[in-house]
Amino acid sequence: MSNIRKLTYEILEIGNKQHTLGKAIDIFLISLISLNVLFVILETLPSVSAEYHRWFYRFEVFSVLIFTIEYIARVWSAIEDTESQHHRPFWGRVRYMLTPMALIDLIVILPFYLSMIVTGVDLRFMRVLRLLRVFKLTRYSSSMSLLLQVLHRQSRSISAALFVLFMLIIVASSLIYFAEHKAQPEAFSSIPAAMWWAIVTMTTVGYGDVIPVTVMGKIMASIISIMSLGIVALPAGLLASGFSEALKQRRRTYEKMVHMAIQDGVVDSVEEKALNQMRETLGISKEDAAHILHSNLDQKFEKEFERDLAQLRKEIDAVLHDRCPHCDHNVKWLERRKKGTSE
Amino acid sequence: MSNIRKLTYEILEIGNKQHTLGKAIDIFLISLISLNVLFVILETLPSVSAEYHRWFYRFEVFSVLIFTIEYIARVWSAIEDTESQHHRPFWGRVRYMLTPMALIDLIVILPFYLSMIVTGVDLRFMRVLRLLRVFKLTRYSSSMSLLLQVLHRQSRSISAALFVLFMLIIVASSLIYFAEHKAQPEAFSSIPAAMWWAIVTMTTVGYGDVIPVTVMGKIMASIISIMSLGIVALPAGLLASGFSEALKQRRRTYEKMVHMAIQDGVVDSVEEKALNQMRETLGISKEDAAHILHSNLDQKFEKEFERDLAQLRKEIDAVLHDRCPHCDHNVKWLERRKKGTSE
Amino acid sequence: MSNIRKLTYEILEIGNKQHTLGKAIDIFLISLISLNVLFVILETLPSVSAEYHRWFYRFEVFSVLIFTIEYIARVWSAIEDTESQHHRPFWGRVRYMLTPMALIDLIVILPFYLSMIVTGVDLRFMRVLRLLRVFKLTRYSSSMSLLLQVLHRQSRSISAALFVLFMLIIVASSLIYFAEHKAQPEAFSSIPAAMWWAIVTMTTVGYGDVIPVTVMGKIMASIISIMSLGIVALPAGLLASGFSEALKQRRRTYEKMVHMAIQDGVVDSVEEKALNQMRETLGISKEDAAHILHSNLDQKFEKEFERDLAQLRKEIDAVLHDRCPHCDHNVKWLERRKKGTSE
Amino acid sequence: MSNIRKLTYEILEIGNKQHTLGKAIDIFLISLISLNVLFVILETLPSVSAEYHRWFYRFEVFSVLIFTIEYIARVWSAIEDTESQHHRPFWGRVRYMLTPMALIDLIVILPFYLSMIVTGVDLRFMRVLRLLRVFKLTRYSSSMSLLLQVLHRQSRSISAALFVLFMLIIVASSLIYFAEHKAQPEAFSSIPAAMWWAIVTMTTVGYGDVIPVTVMGKIMASIISIMSLGIVALPAGLLASGFSEALKQRRRTYEKMVHMAIQDGVVDSVEEKALNQMRETLGISKEDAAHILHSNLDQKFEKEFERDLAQLRKEIDAVLHDRCPHCDHNVKWLERRKKGTSE
Repeated sequence: MSNIRKLTYEILEIGNKQHTLGKAIDIFLISLISLNVLFVILETLPSVSAEYHRWFYRFEVFSVLIFTIEYIARVWSAIEDTESQHHRPFWGRVRYMLTPMALIDLIVILPFYLSMIVTGVDLRFMRVLRLLRVFKLTRYSSSMSLLLQVLHRQSRSISAALFVLFMLIIVASSLIYFAEHKAQPEAFSSIPAAMWWAIVTMTTVGYGDVIPVTVMGKIMASIISIMSLGIVALPAGLLASGFSEALKQRRRTYEKMVHMAIQDGVVDSVEEKALNQMRETLGISKEDAAHILHSNLDQKFEKEFERDLAQLRKEIDAVLHDRCPHCDHNVKWLERRKKGTSE
Repeated sequence: MSNIRKLTYEILEIGNKQHTLGKAIDIFLISLISLNVLFVILETLPSVSAEYHRWFYRFEVFSVLIFTIEYIARVWSAIEDTESQHHRPFWGRVRYMLTPMALIDLIVILPFYLSMIVTGVDLRFMRVLRLLRVFKLTRYSSSMSLLLQVLHRQSRSISAALFVLFMLIIVASSLIYFAEHKAQPEAFSSIPAAMWWAIVTMTTVGYGDVIPVTVMGKIMASIISIMSLGIVALPAGLLASGFSEALKQRRRTYEKMVHMAIQDGVVDSVEEKALNQMRETLGISKEDAAHILHSNLDQKFEKEFERDLAQLRKEIDAVLHDRCPHCDHNVKWLERRKKGTSE
Repeated sequence: MSNIRKLTYEILEIGNKQHTLGKAIDIFLISLISLNVLFVILETLPSVSAEYHRWFYRFEVFSVLIFTIEYIARVWSAIEDTESQHHRPFWGRVRYMLTPMALIDLIVILPFYLSMIVTGVDLRFMRVLRLLRVFKLTRYSSSMSLLLQVLHRQSRSISAALFVLFMLIIVASSLIYFAEHKAQPEAFSSIPAAMWWAIVTMTTVGYGDVIPVTVMGKIMASIISIMSLGIVALPAGLLASGFSEALKQRRRTYEKMVHMAIQDGVVDSVEEKALNQMRETLGISKEDAAHILHSNLDQKFEKEFERDLAQLRKEIDAVLHDRCPHCDHNVKWLERRKKGTSE
Repeated sequence: MSNIRKLTYEILEIGNKQHTLGKAIDIFLISLISLNVLFVILETLPSVSAEYHRWFYRFEVFSVLIFTIEYIARVWSAIEDTESQHHRPFWGRVRYMLTPMALIDLIVILPFYLSMIVTGVDLRFMRVLRLLRVFKLTRYSSSMSLLLQVLHRQSRSISAALFVLFMLIIVASSLIYFAEHKAQPEAFSSIPAAMWWAIVTMTTVGYGDVIPVTVMGKIMASIISIMSLGIVALPAGLLASGFSEALKQRRRTYEKMVHMAIQDGVVDSVEEKALNQMRETLGISKEDAAHILHSNLDQKFEKEFERDLAQLRKEIDAVLHDRCPHCDHNVKWLERRKKGTSE
């Protein structure tokens, strides 16, 4: 029993590298999630919905069934996680059930069962929750986890930029409200209404549904749109620089591992396997990895070569000048001295 | 009296770290300002305004009262500032009253009293000034002060970019005016009118209220919009790079402090407290701080370990080769020489 | 025969540097391609098309003739490529024919011949394929190849950013569909229809043909447009940083070559020629190249000068202090010692 | 005569730093140019034009007079330029007259005289040329010259990015033409017409005057707008990074000068003056300059202090261990040896 649980855990959590079955299940679940998202989108097309309505329902039942089995298996095997604290049979599982990923897994299947028990549940509300299935893909996507990591590390500066943006939106919408309210009492009926204009303008979307018409309003809109160019670009710039910084850091981590692996001059099969797994985890392309390995080997051999050369040069020098190769003393003289005194 | 003044000063100015009362007052004032801004916004909604008009007025009276007390307390205690030159009882306070923050504090309460004395003051004018209360939040926001600092440091290059942008707007609006004036005499009635088009186009907002229709106008608009892509992005790019540079500098400042604190190998409670306060002032997250501390400690121990190792190796070498560990001399021989001469 | 084939290969593939004929053919082909693209564009203007229809057709026949000759010559001479594996007479040529550039060369001439054999082929379909001729320019453009190289190296991070963007588009379009479907059943008829709104908004194009009108829809649109500011800028930022990194790397490659060329202190005519060719291949401007050369020479001479100076200083010191210039021993004393013992 | 010419040259060309008169003339000319630009803009407002028409004309006559005198004085004194090759009385002046700045100076006054001689010259054409006066400001603006310098240095990479953008515009407009031509024969009447849509969409301006309506057109527009996000940002990114690189380089140039000036430990009045002029030429703020100076002084003193400390430590060590402070020999023993042998 415990063995089956352990196997289940490995297949579901980290199975995609080790087990062929794990890989197959990963691909199956990714396909199922993608199809689910696709079908929720297609179902809103009236023509498609009318014709394939029954098929959509059958697929929905099948999906919920699979997701339910997946959820139960995950909860059941969660206590096998060696790194976290979900070891105790009951509380460990409860703890796991409260993690964000487990909650999403629950939320995307729950409405289906609720609609069976309680009649009269809004079908549209259920559809919204079915769309959350797209977040189940996060588990399999290294880019999503990278983005979350960047957002977490840059959270302070990004929230600072957002705070400034927020203040600018308030000031901009208030100013435009006082400038345009009389001329366009409907479009700029209140400051909250003017906020819609402010956001549409400051993000440079510019639909054109609400446009200042007074001279004062146009002057303010001009100043606001020029000022917002800088402010609005701030979170984008911080996120982009954080993203590229994180990518560089992953590269450095890999370089360090390579550096350690080639300390002895060769990369044996064990080291190669470890490097390869690391490379996949960090999301580094094969070409890059090869490039890193070769430049590291080059550096190592270059350094060794230089050291050898320097040693050789010293020894030649020593021979030529009758000196100790270590401290540059005139050895000959010392020896002669020794002989002289011993004589 | 002087003690109370000093306490008032500490509570209002730097109280948020030391006094529990200071922290409470800070939170109270931030909430009051936020509510004020929120209510100015909500008041413009006709439905809300009609129903809660009296409550809004009562809240306004209450707010002005608090802000007046705050203003008087700040001016009264300003001469306690040890760093600045506001020491002389009268001129020191006048000087403080002329600082930007003090002027904002005054401007947001003054209209209320003026409207009591002078009847017939425009109520809308008063509302605009009430919105300035949002700037009172600047005092409590480290992100706002960071932005102001970046703007100050990059002012030269940003104003250079704005000057180029300004020239481009003039040239663009003139060109489009001459191209489109005949075809659309109303939309492009004059160069100032064409400027509205130029700004809306160059910031890529593109409302669509004024659009060139002639072939020549469209060609010019195409060239202008492509050229503006680079020019308009300049201030944004400079601001973003300045922002990220300032964040790095703060990090370095903190790193320096950590480096100094661990010189002796341990971080005692006094050092920890100082580091913590520094961390909060510079706006560095707890995780980052821990990361900096550990990597610094690692480096320190690594260096020490290497030094110890090198020393040890030297001494072993010396023993093995009968040499002085400091200058590599053959000590034995020297000693034997000494004995030989003393014999 | 083999010589002519080799000459053909050199003229067509790398001829632009060595052969005057190769240069002429390059210019001729670039002009022909550009004119082809221009004429496809002009042909869509009804007024132009009506008048010059026959001339366009004649030019088309002429172009296809030239491109056919070019294609045959390229395939015939492909086995002369020394670097790749296209050596075997038959399979080497088949292999070459399957490279992307060769496929484009074929596709842009094939429809013409097909329309002769099979009647009733859609003329519009042929025009689309004629436009692909613009990609034949890629062969001659170093900027295009630079971009492709950058795209290839950054493909992982760019596809990660695109995946996140894709998920955000799905979530945004679904949310706005549920918020606006009832109020605007035509504009937001389905999620795929809402996707059009989402993309237009998130890229900040903002045509204004589909705009949310409900309060909930406007709030969602505001959040989506602010969030997309950062996500949408990610691929752009990664591409830009990759581009500037690639340019720097090219510069470094050139600097290394310069460094090696001036090892002996002078740049002879052979080295100059090699550097010049390298410079053109890497797309470095003449000014930059001159700058790199001079700063390298300066550094070289500076270092040599410093080394000479240090040596000189040591020798002067030695003379002044009666010391061995190599190990700082008091030579005089040693000599006196020697004399003393030999006396 | 020659003296007056030299004075004229100094006042006009580099006078703003040395001569009070030069400064005054600079300010006067900048004001005159700015007023000219302002009046050309205002003149297009019908209400202003009607009322102040005569005043505008008088100001125009006055401006042309001044600009004519300025132009003659510049040409006359151009041969005083010590750096360039305009020394020969006649050809030197002709050469100067062909420089871009001199041509602008001529073009902005020429139409006025032409309209006097030749009647019937289009007044609107004259106005366009009057607007070129804005470029006379370039002479006085360090930001404009910085931008031109960056554009010149990055010209290769920016033109590469523009070439890619150009190809994308052609492909995008052709694709949308074939997709939308049938559905909207007027809006997408030809590929050149579709180019207007492509540029408006790819720069994310998005007026909304031409919008794809077919499903195929919308899909293509979506792909194009997402792809253009990266391509369009390329020139902007390159320009921004070039700008910030140029600013850093100016800073480094200044730092080098400071470094040289403080070699002797003090900054005398001559050095201070030179540094100040350099600072203004390079456009570095006073604060930055002070910061650079102090950090350089600090570094210098720190290094000296460390060197002194190391020397002191060595000497103490030597005294403690009876060793020569220079080569670590046991001096005492040597001396005793000497005495021993002399004894």
